[in-house]
Amino acid sequence: MLLCDIGNTSYHFFDGVRSYKENVKQFDPSSITEDVYFISVNTEVNNSLVTLSNWINLAESIDKSSYYETMGLDRIVALEAVHNAVIVDAGSAITVDVKREGIFEGGFISAGLNAMSETYKSISPALSYEFNMALYTKKLPKNSQDAISYGYLKLLQTEVLSFELPIILTGGDSKSLQELFPNAIQNENLIFDGMKKLIIKL
Amino acid sequence: MLLCDIGNTSYHFFDGVRSYKENVKQFDPSSITEDVYFISVNTEVNNSLVTLSNWINLAESIDKSSYYETMGLDRIVALEAVHNAVIVDAGSAITVDVKREGIFEGGFISAGLNAMSETYKSISPALSYEFNMALYTKKLPKNSQDAISYGYLKLLQTEVLSFELPIILTGGDSKSLQELFPNAIQNENLIFDGMKKLIIKL
Repeated sequence: MLLCDIGNTSYHFFDGVRSYKENVKQFDPSSITEDVYFISVNTEVNNSLVTLSNWINLAESIDKSSYYETMGLDRIVALEAVHNAVIVDAGSAITVDVKREGIFEGGFISAGLNAMSETYKSISPALSYEFNMALYTKKLPKNSQDAISYGYLKLLQTEVLSFELPIILTGGDSKSLQELFPNAIQNENLIFDGMKKLIIKL
Repeated sequence: MLLCDIGNTSYHFFDGVRSYKENVKQFDPSSITEDVYFISVNTEVNNSLVTLSNWINLAESIDKSSYYETMGLDRIVALEAVHNAVIVDAGSAITVDVKREGIFEGGFISAGLNAMSETYKSISPALSYEFNMALYTKKLPKNSQDAISYGYLKLLQTEVLSFELPIILTGGDSKSLQELFPNAIQNENLIFDGMKKLIIKL
């Protein structure tokens, strides 16, 4: 049995031990013969998988009534994995979702590290700095690098800490955010944890 | 006597009553015969003004020791106008600067409304929404429009309010931010107020 989280650019597999990615354009899903439980935000791939009986779409077993219409399936499935936590999923966007005692309270979306770096650069070459992640106890900045880091990351940090819940970091850039949230738990397989819970419900 | 704040795209004049803008590329500064006190972040224009004796550069009368090396002159001059306030200057970037009892505590830089709107759009067409400015008492969002508005503007709002100082809104997008900071003072001429204080010091 395999688990697979399908995005716009890759198939992200988990075989129970390790996770690995395959490019959406190059990978042939019919090359796999064992059962694959998947979620997907990629409509094109979704359509091609309908004909493969060993690819089982978990989307149908999700109770979406606790969430909202346009919410990404990946955010929902990650939330299914936790009972009491803030999930910070750092990818092209940074999504922050709050679940307290089993109830989804809502969430917000910030820009991802790359996107935000590009944004500052596009506003002015004078704002073209790497982010300083060491802002945990930072006072108000008196230099340009800290000024943009604070305007983006310190504000995010303050909001995430304000929920006073355990913090789970996931997504491709989660390691970069560890310094902002030293007490957070890294879980790059959170989405697969959520998928396992959905399989039990099948 | 005229005051003038010169940016990368325009000369921003103030004649004591009204303010108006002239395009940097089209305007001929030698067409003005009266005294013009100016600040400028535009090196090219700076060089051309050296030969005009009625254009008086206020940069030299600024005591930069309280600020920092790479800090924009416009931010410094706006700060010279206040004694105890948070200045939120909303343009291509949103700069937030804190002065408490005459002491500059530091500041941070967020992206401007247009830049941030473009950023979300570039991350995903699913995040292509206008910002909802009515976030003052907003709970955690349960829809995409509020999720991006919260991730950008609610975080900014929380930080700005945390300083517990009078808030002054200035810059081209200041009116758009009024709803986020209902008790803030709008002052589109803040930079000119700062320049007047510098002239007295000459």
